[in-house]
Amino acid sequence: MVHVAVLGYGVVGSGVVDILNENSVCINDRASDEIKVKKILDIRDFSGSPYAELFTNKPDEIFNDPDINIVVETIGGTSFAYEYTKRALMSGKHVVTSNKELVAAHGPELLKLARENNVRYLFEASVGGGIPIIRPLNHCLSANRIDGITGILNGTTNYILTKMKRDGADFNEALEKAKMNGYAEADPSADIDGHDACRKLAILSSIAFGKFVDYRNIYTEGIANITITDMKYADALDSAIKLLAVCKRTPGGFFCRVSPAIIKKGHPLAMVEDVFNAIMVEGNAVGDAMFYGRGAGKMPTASAVVADIIDIVNHVNGGVKGIWDRNDSLRIVSVEESFTRMFVRLEVQDKCMAQKATADIFGDCEFVKLSDMENEIAFVTPEMAEKDINLKLKELLGSVGIKSVKNSIRVHW
Amino acid sequence: MVHVAVLGYGVVGSGVVDILNENSVCINDRASDEIKVKKILDIRDFSGSPYAELFTNKPDEIFNDPDINIVVETIGGTSFAYEYTKRALMSGKHVVTSNKELVAAHGPELLKLARENNVRYLFEASVGGGIPIIRPLNHCLSANRIDGITGILNGTTNYILTKMKRDGADFNEALEKAKMNGYAEADPSADIDGHDACRKLAILSSIAFGKFVDYRNIYTEGIANITITDMKYADALDSAIKLLAVCKRTPGGFFCRVSPAIIKKGHPLAMVEDVFNAIMVEGNAVGDAMFYGRGAGKMPTASAVVADIIDIVNHVNGGVKGIWDRNDSLRIVSVEESFTRMFVRLEVQDKCMAQKATADIFGDCEFVKLSDMENEIAFVTPEMAEKDINLKLKELLGSVGIKSVKNSIRVHW
Repeated sequence: MVHVAVLGYGVVGSGVVDILNENSVCINDRASDEIKVKKILDIRDFSGSPYAELFTNKPDEIFNDPDINIVVETIGGTSFAYEYTKRALMSGKHVVTSNKELVAAHGPELLKLARENNVRYLFEASVGGGIPIIRPLNHCLSANRIDGITGILNGTTNYILTKMKRDGADFNEALEKAKMNGYAEADPSADIDGHDACRKLAILSSIAFGKFVDYRNIYTEGIANITITDMKYADALDSAIKLLAVCKRTPGGFFCRVSPAIIKKGHPLAMVEDVFNAIMVEGNAVGDAMFYGRGAGKMPTASAVVADIIDIVNHVNGGVKGIWDRNDSLRIVSVEESFTRMFVRLEVQDKCMAQKATADIFGDCEFVKLSDMENEIAFVTPEMAEKDINLKLKELLGSVGIKSVKNSIRVHW
Repeated sequence: MVHVAVLGYGVVGSGVVDILNENSVCINDRASDEIKVKKILDIRDFSGSPYAELFTNKPDEIFNDPDINIVVETIGGTSFAYEYTKRALMSGKHVVTSNKELVAAHGPELLKLARENNVRYLFEASVGGGIPIIRPLNHCLSANRIDGITGILNGTTNYILTKMKRDGADFNEALEKAKMNGYAEADPSADIDGHDACRKLAILSSIAFGKFVDYRNIYTEGIANITITDMKYADALDSAIKLLAVCKRTPGGFFCRVSPAIIKKGHPLAMVEDVFNAIMVEGNAVGDAMFYGRGAGKMPTASAVVADIIDIVNHVNGGVKGIWDRNDSLRIVSVEESFTRMFVRLEVQDKCMAQKATADIFGDCEFVKLSDMENEIAFVTPEMAEKDINLKLKELLGSVGIKSVKNSIRVHW
């Protein structure tokens, strides 16, 4: 019998308890030992719960219980979660978590602590919710040199962008809709400003490229500036706008960013709608492989947590070495040095003159037209370093009759 | 040092040798021991190959070599491959394969033999080429009761259907194009008649549902009857036509089939084009998860073989128990008893009368119109058992002015 303690009976924690109970038949078929929840740590009152007798508010009852082999940390954040994870690992207990903030902030230290105590620290649920991605990267694609990762890693923003495109709702309307449906929190900034996706990209990149990526070094831009007009231009380019998290191997180093991007409708990531997430992995042998599913939510996320528990019970070995040393981190190219094509909208006085000035300065641009846009031109630049795009835009703004940059969005082609 | 022998230096076998050499740096980072190809079995002359000194045509040199720990079987078929796999397992060597025919035909016996000899028989590459799917089913989704699998499992047929849709080529033109591009074999029947997809579905279903599925019990229909006109109707239904391999849990048992199907364009599987494959898995906790990538080809398939090798080297444990007993096979519902909606095209004398007769017999049908179709009506039936659809079609053919069924295609909604 393997005993599990769950820390934090919120959305994911309660999902873990539910799955272990509801799916016990098929889980027992697959696990080499029976799995039982022995304790649940939460300070709130769950006396009406069917699991009422499992609750405790005393962490010591868990950390000092030698019967408890596996601790599930579903508290979230980096304060109590950090402290309790360290205590659990030092007490010789395996820890499984869905907490991306903690993994992104303290992953190297916690992995080292786990190794020193001969236990495991697993976090499949921290990226992509229920989508298997960390295990596939570590195992299934282990024959590949990974050259790139491109993901839609945040369900809230993808829902908002889908609503805007489908219903013609503007950003604020779509955000309200997301809140009403429980897809966005009261303070949605972690999602819409891209910070959630950024932490997940840091975790994925660390695994894919074998070196620690500090999330604070990833250029991050949210979706609050995306308008319905931008969506219409994207449509005219046979494209969609998505919040993309990208990390790519380039000759000069790794280029890593989270930002809205224009992506062709034929691209598999373009069809990822609503709260779904997907991660495209580029390997030098496998080519492009994509993993798609529910990136958040109680049961999908708990599904990934329970898969980690079953792997521990079955002694499925990680066998990954040499990753996540904080002192040997990935060389990230600054966003100014990284290459892209850029979609640009300019407020102008005379369209013809502005177009001529743009072509003179940027060279071979693709101009995009919408029927009802007055005093505005839009175009896609050739691929070049972002600092060069910025210099040229500055020069362009000095031209006669070009008044302002209304928006600029990276193009992922 | 782990020594590997490769049986059969064809497309996949040579890819395995290439990856082990070309990606040795990142593979050594991930594997706990160095991996080296010691022997390659092939009767052909490879004296010009950079690996010339590794070749042998004497199987005994491999089976009797105690240094060789892992045998890669990339011979294909079920004669030599079967014999050599048994010998390797009985000699205490792990076997890794991409051979779907052998796994589908003799999987239970070979898995049992592996267990008895305390070695492993791994076949990630047998389904979906480079797409990780067997390991995700066994591990990542282990917390779920799997309720359904729907896949595009054959690249050749998907390429042909994509060509037909995109270029308006008819089936034979598209098949010729596939042959020219090396995507179809000289005798393409295993692909176009659905047999290849059928074997892969048998393997996936066995793993997903924990009981042996004999591929001979899976209803299988190919794509040779699909016409450009069918594609136009599908388009009018905002849908595409794909060769779908489906296995679903239903109250009466499992329903399992390979057939062309009409699928809405918004469905993630509808965007899978060209030679790409994808597998959608429905779990009771995770919901829908999809795995997408290159389903065939030298390097993608070899990528999956080498991932299995690395797992063996790292002692990554399977930990799956109780699957694949030939005497305890999955209860499959006959295709006549299984439920579907059906798209039907009828040759008729009078469209109005025919439409009335159809509505009288089938009830609530969705009629589909193409502008230039004379003497023809087309419709989608309500969902019902296939035997009832067939009975009603027979009745309909007895009506005045209804001459023949031009085609019928299952609808996957």
